[in-house]
Amino acid sequence: MILDDKFQDECGVFGIFNHEEASRLTYLGLYSLQHRGQESAGIVSSDGKEFYRARGMGQVADVFTGLTLENLKGKSAIGHVRYSTTGESIPSNVQPIVSECWRGPVTLAHNGNLVNALKLKKELERDGAIFQSTSDTEVILHLLARCPLSNRDEAIKEVLKQLRGAYSLLMLSSAALYAIRDRHGVRPLCLGQSEDGYVVASETCAFDLIGAEYIRDIKPGEILRIDKNGLTSFHMKPEVKPAHCVFEHVYFSRPDSLVFERSVNLMRRKMGIQLARETHVDADLVIPVPDSGVTAALGYAEESGTQFDFGLIRNHYVGRTFIEPKQSIRHFGVKVKLNPVKEILKGKRVVLIDDSIVRGTTSKKIVQMVRSAGASEIHFRVSSPPTVAPCMYGIDTPTSGELIASDKTIEEIRAFITADSLAYLSLEGLLDSVDGQGKFCSACFDKKYPISIKSVDEQGRLFEDNRNGRKSKASVINEIYK
Amino acid sequence: MILDDKFQDECGVFGIFNHEEASRLTYLGLYSLQHRGQESAGIVSSDGKEFYRARGMGQVADVFTGLTLENLKGKSAIGHVRYSTTGESIPSNVQPIVSECWRGPVTLAHNGNLVNALKLKKELERDGAIFQSTSDTEVILHLLARCPLSNRDEAIKEVLKQLRGAYSLLMLSSAALYAIRDRHGVRPLCLGQSEDGYVVASETCAFDLIGAEYIRDIKPGEILRIDKNGLTSFHMKPEVKPAHCVFEHVYFSRPDSLVFERSVNLMRRKMGIQLARETHVDADLVIPVPDSGVTAALGYAEESGTQFDFGLIRNHYVGRTFIEPKQSIRHFGVKVKLNPVKEILKGKRVVLIDDSIVRGTTSKKIVQMVRSAGASEIHFRVSSPPTVAPCMYGIDTPTSGELIASDKTIEEIRAFITADSLAYLSLEGLLDSVDGQGKFCSACFDKKYPISIKSVDEQGRLFEDNRNGRKSKASVINEIYK
Amino acid sequence: MILDDKFQDECGVFGIFNHEEASRLTYLGLYSLQHRGQESAGIVSSDGKEFYRARGMGQVADVFTGLTLENLKGKSAIGHVRYSTTGESIPSNVQPIVSECWRGPVTLAHNGNLVNALKLKKELERDGAIFQSTSDTEVILHLLARCPLSNRDEAIKEVLKQLRGAYSLLMLSSAALYAIRDRHGVRPLCLGQSEDGYVVASETCAFDLIGAEYIRDIKPGEILRIDKNGLTSFHMKPEVKPAHCVFEHVYFSRPDSLVFERSVNLMRRKMGIQLARETHVDADLVIPVPDSGVTAALGYAEESGTQFDFGLIRNHYVGRTFIEPKQSIRHFGVKVKLNPVKEILKGKRVVLIDDSIVRGTTSKKIVQMVRSAGASEIHFRVSSPPTVAPCMYGIDTPTSGELIASDKTIEEIRAFITADSLAYLSLEGLLDSVDGQGKFCSACFDKKYPISIKSVDEQGRLFEDNRNGRKSKASVINEIYK
Amino acid sequence: MILDDKFQDECGVFGIFNHEEASRLTYLGLYSLQHRGQESAGIVSSDGKEFYRARGMGQVADVFTGLTLENLKGKSAIGHVRYSTTGESIPSNVQPIVSECWRGPVTLAHNGNLVNALKLKKELERDGAIFQSTSDTEVILHLLARCPLSNRDEAIKEVLKQLRGAYSLLMLSSAALYAIRDRHGVRPLCLGQSEDGYVVASETCAFDLIGAEYIRDIKPGEILRIDKNGLTSFHMKPEVKPAHCVFEHVYFSRPDSLVFERSVNLMRRKMGIQLARETHVDADLVIPVPDSGVTAALGYAEESGTQFDFGLIRNHYVGRTFIEPKQSIRHFGVKVKLNPVKEILKGKRVVLIDDSIVRGTTSKKIVQMVRSAGASEIHFRVSSPPTVAPCMYGIDTPTSGELIASDKTIEEIRAFITADSLAYLSLEGLLDSVDGQGKFCSACFDKKYPISIKSVDEQGRLFEDNRNGRKSKASVINEIYK
Repeated sequence: MILDDKFQDECGVFGIFNHEEASRLTYLGLYSLQHRGQESAGIVSSDGKEFYRARGMGQVADVFTGLTLENLKGKSAIGHVRYSTTGESIPSNVQPIVSECWRGPVTLAHNGNLVNALKLKKELERDGAIFQSTSDTEVILHLLARCPLSNRDEAIKEVLKQLRGAYSLLMLSSAALYAIRDRHGVRPLCLGQSEDGYVVASETCAFDLIGAEYIRDIKPGEILRIDKNGLTSFHMKPEVKPAHCVFEHVYFSRPDSLVFERSVNLMRRKMGIQLARETHVDADLVIPVPDSGVTAALGYAEESGTQFDFGLIRNHYVGRTFIEPKQSIRHFGVKVKLNPVKEILKGKRVVLIDDSIVRGTTSKKIVQMVRSAGASEIHFRVSSPPTVAPCMYGIDTPTSGELIASDKTIEEIRAFITADSLAYLSLEGLLDSVDGQGKFCSACFDKKYPISIKSVDEQGRLFEDNRNGRKSKASVINEIYK
Repeated sequence: MILDDKFQDECGVFGIFNHEEASRLTYLGLYSLQHRGQESAGIVSSDGKEFYRARGMGQVADVFTGLTLENLKGKSAIGHVRYSTTGESIPSNVQPIVSECWRGPVTLAHNGNLVNALKLKKELERDGAIFQSTSDTEVILHLLARCPLSNRDEAIKEVLKQLRGAYSLLMLSSAALYAIRDRHGVRPLCLGQSEDGYVVASETCAFDLIGAEYIRDIKPGEILRIDKNGLTSFHMKPEVKPAHCVFEHVYFSRPDSLVFERSVNLMRRKMGIQLARETHVDADLVIPVPDSGVTAALGYAEESGTQFDFGLIRNHYVGRTFIEPKQSIRHFGVKVKLNPVKEILKGKRVVLIDDSIVRGTTSKKIVQMVRSAGASEIHFRVSSPPTVAPCMYGIDTPTSGELIASDKTIEEIRAFITADSLAYLSLEGLLDSVDGQGKFCSACFDKKYPISIKSVDEQGRLFEDNRNGRKSKASVINEIYK
Repeated sequence: MILDDKFQDECGVFGIFNHEEASRLTYLGLYSLQHRGQESAGIVSSDGKEFYRARGMGQVADVFTGLTLENLKGKSAIGHVRYSTTGESIPSNVQPIVSECWRGPVTLAHNGNLVNALKLKKELERDGAIFQSTSDTEVILHLLARCPLSNRDEAIKEVLKQLRGAYSLLMLSSAALYAIRDRHGVRPLCLGQSEDGYVVASETCAFDLIGAEYIRDIKPGEILRIDKNGLTSFHMKPEVKPAHCVFEHVYFSRPDSLVFERSVNLMRRKMGIQLARETHVDADLVIPVPDSGVTAALGYAEESGTQFDFGLIRNHYVGRTFIEPKQSIRHFGVKVKLNPVKEILKGKRVVLIDDSIVRGTTSKKIVQMVRSAGASEIHFRVSSPPTVAPCMYGIDTPTSGELIASDKTIEEIRAFITADSLAYLSLEGLLDSVDGQGKFCSACFDKKYPISIKSVDEQGRLFEDNRNGRKSKASVINEIYK
Repeated sequence: MILDDKFQDECGVFGIFNHEEASRLTYLGLYSLQHRGQESAGIVSSDGKEFYRARGMGQVADVFTGLTLENLKGKSAIGHVRYSTTGESIPSNVQPIVSECWRGPVTLAHNGNLVNALKLKKELERDGAIFQSTSDTEVILHLLARCPLSNRDEAIKEVLKQLRGAYSLLMLSSAALYAIRDRHGVRPLCLGQSEDGYVVASETCAFDLIGAEYIRDIKPGEILRIDKNGLTSFHMKPEVKPAHCVFEHVYFSRPDSLVFERSVNLMRRKMGIQLARETHVDADLVIPVPDSGVTAALGYAEESGTQFDFGLIRNHYVGRTFIEPKQSIRHFGVKVKLNPVKEILKGKRVVLIDDSIVRGTTSKKIVQMVRSAGASEIHFRVSSPPTVAPCMYGIDTPTSGELIASDKTIEEIRAFITADSLAYLSLEGLLDSVDGQGKFCSACFDKKYPISIKSVDEQGRLFEDNRNGRKSKASVINEIYK
């Protein structure tokens, strides 16, 4: 597998209520959200009586066929694409998850991360619960089943009080679709309309493809029930300051989406403009690391008056698996994806723009490759601040120790990646660019976690094991494939 | 799909403890038990710390590869093949089922049927449990998780007290393999030894292939714990009269197995001998309906002094799926499996032997086909009594209404299948043949259910819906495949 | 792979002309002929203008789906199943083979072996031909394309004059289906009728399944053209003595088929009767090696008055691939297929019946296994003479050196397989049983090859390389699979 | 399938001689050439004695596994990716094609199109040849087999004299790899070096990935033999004026490749600059149609001083198949691939840049979609001249009648695509940009076919059927898949 040295989004969700083509539009919605997770995909639909589920490992186009979509009957559906973090990427973890309890069947799709999931799980186990997967989502289903309140809305509110962390949730019962967002609104969730039906999605690009109209964001702390009576909204108390994930603007979201009610493309261009203001250097060319650095690079080039060109060409046919040569080929790992254009780079002073540096290993290879293609100077510019801390709210990040900026100075990083100069966008610059002072979570840049992770720390070692990076093991069950 | 008009076995189980090749021998064991269920197969192994699971729809040889077996690490394992009855045959129902609870992870493989499963499920749901499959087995895991006794052996005993029905259970924890059989010993379960390890299987033919030595049956009501200290045995109280499923001897088990400590082959031959004594008719040939009628037919031919021959040839390449012609072809459905040999049958008085008649539709086609191949007389003989009632203990039988013998006289059945004469083995004759007066369940022949199904009836309609035949719907969740 | 120590049939062919369901009936016909070849299958159909081909590695039920059959349009078709001998079993060799030449497109399915194929191939290559497969069939297509005669019937006759060996051929052009059999009639080929259409097949069991009526065999040396005018028959000159393959009766054909106008089942039973007359020994039981020895064993038991029983049970779920244990398990290789029933065999004097002994290795394992199951004496009886020479006419046999009877006396073979006694049916006894003195090829028993292989020997080493056993390499092209 | 309204490349070829990792590097080379053909891929390797072939439908990463590459033994190999034009895209057409003839085995991979292929095929058939595929390549193998010259080099020269059209050929025998290019050098072919071995590829990007050094192009009319003695070069007579395909620079080749010894990226940027000079219009934004219009758009923006932005975002997860909604969704077909960014486009005067307009249907949808995203003016600019005629030399183009520019004025095209203005780059401008007056084939722009297609026209209807667009039917054999 070719590993991108990037933070990885964990999931995208899509839901629809009261539409003749519920499962097909869910399929299309997930297709648009494919960049948010490529390891598995699932759809559950309902005709008001029965539920229908199809799911599998792989990309949306591989998991579903015309026939499976035909068999996903009914006028409501929810879907999920995932990358996998807290649970291993195994079939029993593929969402949406479905269960039956005394309230009847319910299905759930979840984007985010509960910081008290392990604590809740231990309590539930102590109370006799059994767990068949390793995902946070199963915890929520248990809480809901155990809540004695007969009114489902009240029960949901009660359950949500126990959850701590970031979550954008879709929950489908026989009669209603619930769209729920945690009080800080960490992960995005948008509401739209398609003919007589309502749609909910992680990003608005999913609405564009199916011709749905964007209405508004689900609000932080909002519980939106969509049923035959239309929209009914509840709000969790107390209200708190929003803490949107700024990295959605830096890297995760598609540039053609509105996220947190802002155009991702415009935000990224502004980051590039601000980056030029803060870190300008005389050069012949501005070269983006495609595709992540392209929009910021255009802004940088515009602001600095330096020529923009594609000096690195991306091979878009690269798949998830790749058979490597046995012999060592120079820069092979990065060249499978990126190839430098010698005729552009030769003898040029180059500003290389990327959105972030995580471990630094890939950046180093790119710098070396560009230099051996003939660039005379390489000035590396990053359109966000140094990433110094892991995300606790649903993004797959390496552990602190693996983050190069966690214990190295900028000069040390520069030396490591062998660039002639290196500069990052300031946190103020970033937040100004997204017009977001006081509204964003920037914990990965400043370690200021808006949702306390302390009580979990009190649980001791478990938290550290589970949340501190992708290599932790959340389960003793290993699913084996052919 | 080509439907056999037969009672269908529901599952086979295999377990092994303390063997270097635990998962490979489990694979081989399941291979030998393939006749007990061809719809799905699964193995869970354990290295004492972690558990490894592989499972899939289809036959054993298709579900597992050399690589999956390599990855099923550890020195203990349990496996399961199933045909599916109480739960739909969907992946989330493929056993062994695994869950984590406060006692740690545990995995379960189950052959049988709990008559109070729905009652228990309703009670558990009322108490906040969620269900992610439709199998009885999940109920047992919930009960175990909720049992507060800290000693696992005691907890198991406590849980078993709540189960009513037929079950041969294998339960694997990190430290021990439990082999458990209900108090009536309805379904078989045998203990064997292979080098330093112990093996447990539904039938002894699984021991033969792997070179294990048969020791004894797990006793009715026995809870056998196999761990590093060897064998420890507990017994449920009070003891009751055994009620072994006599149909295991009539049809289900492999003829080369010992079942209920008797040779299946010898039992079947004795049924044929007894059948000749009870129902002799002058004829030129004894012809079995292969493969089920072969051994009894040999006994019948020997006792009656009539010549035995294979006048019906079975095509052993018939798969589960088959593309049918659009036009009508005479006797097509049965001819895919069986072809008459005209040169043998022409002008002959034939005794046709089968083990049972269920709906009568296939028997009718066979009689018609044999007659149009030239037989001058066809005397149908059945090596068991008329099947008048469905099984409640783990066999997939049609509803009473579909059983031809439930409301038709023997003469009416004869007329329906268009035979010149028809006779069945008497119940006494059957039980004498297996040396089993007072030790067997023969409810499908005499409606005498040894385990009361009354309290379940008190639950009302649910029981009838769920237990009375294969077409009932146990779930509102429908899994969709490509 | 589990290797049967048997001679292997090489192919089965089926053709149909003027039937609405041409491709479906071809599928069903191949299904019935599956025992003649399980490695690949192919169908080519024609609507009188275009040709449609579907083919693949594996069994008939796996190669074709309902959709592929829908797309195999037209009212005529030919099909082929193969085991593979002269060509490696690779996709480019899967028949029917199709080509275009100046006469238009033509497709060919072939059962048999040309003894002068290499000689013809060399001549054709010298004349500028290119070969894209390693099958004999391509040679025939080249000869036909190069024949200048404009009348197709005349051209076919001309081409056939150049072929030496055994062949049952089906050739489909846009307008006609040709069924052709070599002058000795070595391999079988039968004609039948289905509604307004005609069908041709290797064995009559293919007619039974589709409800077609058997008319007669294609005669040795006959060229039968089936077109819109019905049947037109030509005959090759000069007529020669027939030389039907007697092994079709001994082992290959299905017992419910008519082959060479004789019932295979009756022939085999007569072999068993004759075997008892020639080789009787006092014993308690006659036990067949299933399935190949069953019919002869019934005859032996009847004639000798000894009791017949299934003391070896065959596992019919055995697939082509099988993951073996790492540790050594006693008799494992043969136990995967056959399991002895100790309760039957214990303390008994047993006559074991099989149809043939090829290398002797499997027979040895069976004898050992039966003995360790408790048999007190084991008398091995074979319902055909010792196989001393390879087949040159389309059967996959080991080289002479591998045939145990080629250089060992019967006593030496007995010692090798560790039986208490060993006896074979005499050649006279075999030919009497099939009522076939002077009509059969028995070269594998007596080295009297009815079609001279001399001129090929004159070609030197090439013949020996290619025809002398399955391990020879016919090509320098190796097809690689995933 | 989502149809791109683009000219389609037909194939890419890669060869290697004398390298330890021949098949792996061929795999990597094909990976880099994937943009030249995604429908099938094949590799044939040789160890000097035997040949090994692996091939399949689909992309390189799907066709080959680590195991297949292991089995493709030897130190020389050739590979091929194809889109398919003259032959249907069926497995029997997957290249490289292999055959045996009196010279021994030979394998061939071909990029281009022979204009006299049908004529040659008819002549060969008249002379007794049989054809098993529909590709031009089989014709070349026949000619080679029939050439009586014993010296292979001389035979190849003789065969090439008979070929008319465009071809870049790789031919591998046991002892040598031949790289051959037609006298006009229509399609590209480059020579490189990797350690002790030589490599040949359609584009230099294949060398970059494997770390090989580009040496030079194979010259028009050159026959380059690579064997253990190194390089030996022959040249066809007479020399003619080169006629490189200018569309390789406009669209087909990867921007990071050198093609015809020029940097594709630089050529495209110059086209954009020239386009601005010729067709400047006042606007707020230059927006490329990604990915084909990006480089030219950068040049246009630079030259015109207009701001460049990505107002259309491409979804790179789009696969070959896609399940469409049943209801009509506005702009759906194009929106699956491209999504407009309203926040960028709203109220703006936009210059839309694409490399070509073929049928005009996609361009129309893009213009409409951009307008409904809020653009106030849309000026469409094309970085090549109007495409008025089909390619005869190996590019898959629609028939003349389908080319919108073949019978419409620019104003009519503008009206059709609903742009506010439309302008194309002039042919002079294009040829100046690539520094290629007198060296390029521009027949698709000016109908001046450098290789006469007249003699083929004399053959009558056949030529028109076969060469005039992708829908023609080259064969009466239809391969059917599951």
